[in-house]
Amino acid sequence: MNYLIVYSHPNPASFNHAIKETVVKALKDKGKNVRVRDVYSMRFDPVLKADDFETFQQERTPRDIEIEQEHVRWADVLIFIYPVWWAGMPAIARGYIDRVFSIGFAYENTPEGPKGLLTGKKVYVFNTMGAPVAAYEQSGIFKAIELLTDQETFRFCGLEVLGHKYFGSVTTVTDDDRKAMLGEVERVAASLV
Amino acid sequence: MNYLIVYSHPNPASFNHAIKETVVKALKDKGKNVRVRDVYSMRFDPVLKADDFETFQQERTPRDIEIEQEHVRWADVLIFIYPVWWAGMPAIARGYIDRVFSIGFAYENTPEGPKGLLTGKKVYVFNTMGAPVAAYEQSGIFKAIELLTDQETFRFCGLEVLGHKYFGSVTTVTDDDRKAMLGEVERVAASLV
Repeated sequence: MNYLIVYSHPNPASFNHAIKETVVKALKDKGKNVRVRDVYSMRFDPVLKADDFETFQQERTPRDIEIEQEHVRWADVLIFIYPVWWAGMPAIARGYIDRVFSIGFAYENTPEGPKGLLTGKKVYVFNTMGAPVAAYEQSGIFKAIELLTDQETFRFCGLEVLGHKYFGSVTTVTDDDRKAMLGEVERVAASLV
Repeated sequence: MNYLIVYSHPNPASFNHAIKETVVKALKDKGKNVRVRDVYSMRFDPVLKADDFETFQQERTPRDIEIEQEHVRWADVLIFIYPVWWAGMPAIARGYIDRVFSIGFAYENTPEGPKGLLTGKKVYVFNTMGAPVAAYEQSGIFKAIELLTDQETFRFCGLEVLGHKYFGSVTTVTDDDRKAMLGEVERVAASLV
């Protein structure tokens, strides 16, 4: 089984980074194939251009996108790791979707409506937030995020959503709390094999 | 009254462009002050960097963000115009929020919780979609978008949300439909003065 981690955080000292390291280790310990796309380190360009539309139509994909699509094609399981900013994805993660999940690759329009092309693959999402989990739950933010991201983006493309895990208060918790959270990350990662 | 239009579309032949032009004309015809931030033409950098966090903390704002914040400061009404991609903002528009609506400028943390700093200002959102409006309404996508964008982003910063207008099927409607839609844009813009 092949695992592609799409990791979006600017700070190598972040909890998101620790999540990524934990997932990689857990999967590699089980002998799985793991690739990491560290979109910040790669300086991934998240801005979908007018040109991109033309090239997609002409079935000539920009080189940087071709590379990412080849990674997605290789993967059985995609694992997205990013902080929740403004109740959603950071721009660079959104741009990964805008540009890599292009028409003709991730979905197509048919006379019966749009059809996902990433069927057979699975996805798991790890998110962090500064605020406590309870605040997001009560206000319905998780439900809205899951509708827009898990349903309207990932399932729209035919992916099976294995789960969506949120860690709250990550900027203020104690080291012990962080350790417990990373233990949970490890258990989740082990459950994905 | 000062109006700041934050316009995010890569294609000058797009319906979003026509919306922008219509809003500008309607407001200028009423003698209002209008500024347009065409984030694609400006090649706005939407990627919030590790450095940005540090500079915000040191109260040294990156120059490109300082310019945008000065525009926001100037405005009484913000008008966002962008297409709905993947049930949300294009990466470049999200990045405008990620970077320009920074802590200390758009909101602050207080012992009583986060507090918006853009109080007294208003915001209106124009969106377009490829799919019909009814499909989005039925699936609850608009409700989710309004929770995450209008509530958790704009109202979070203290902005009064004047409205959120969606135009569906924009890639497939007739020229007459487009004309009627732009008439609606004109009426909305006139109602904002």
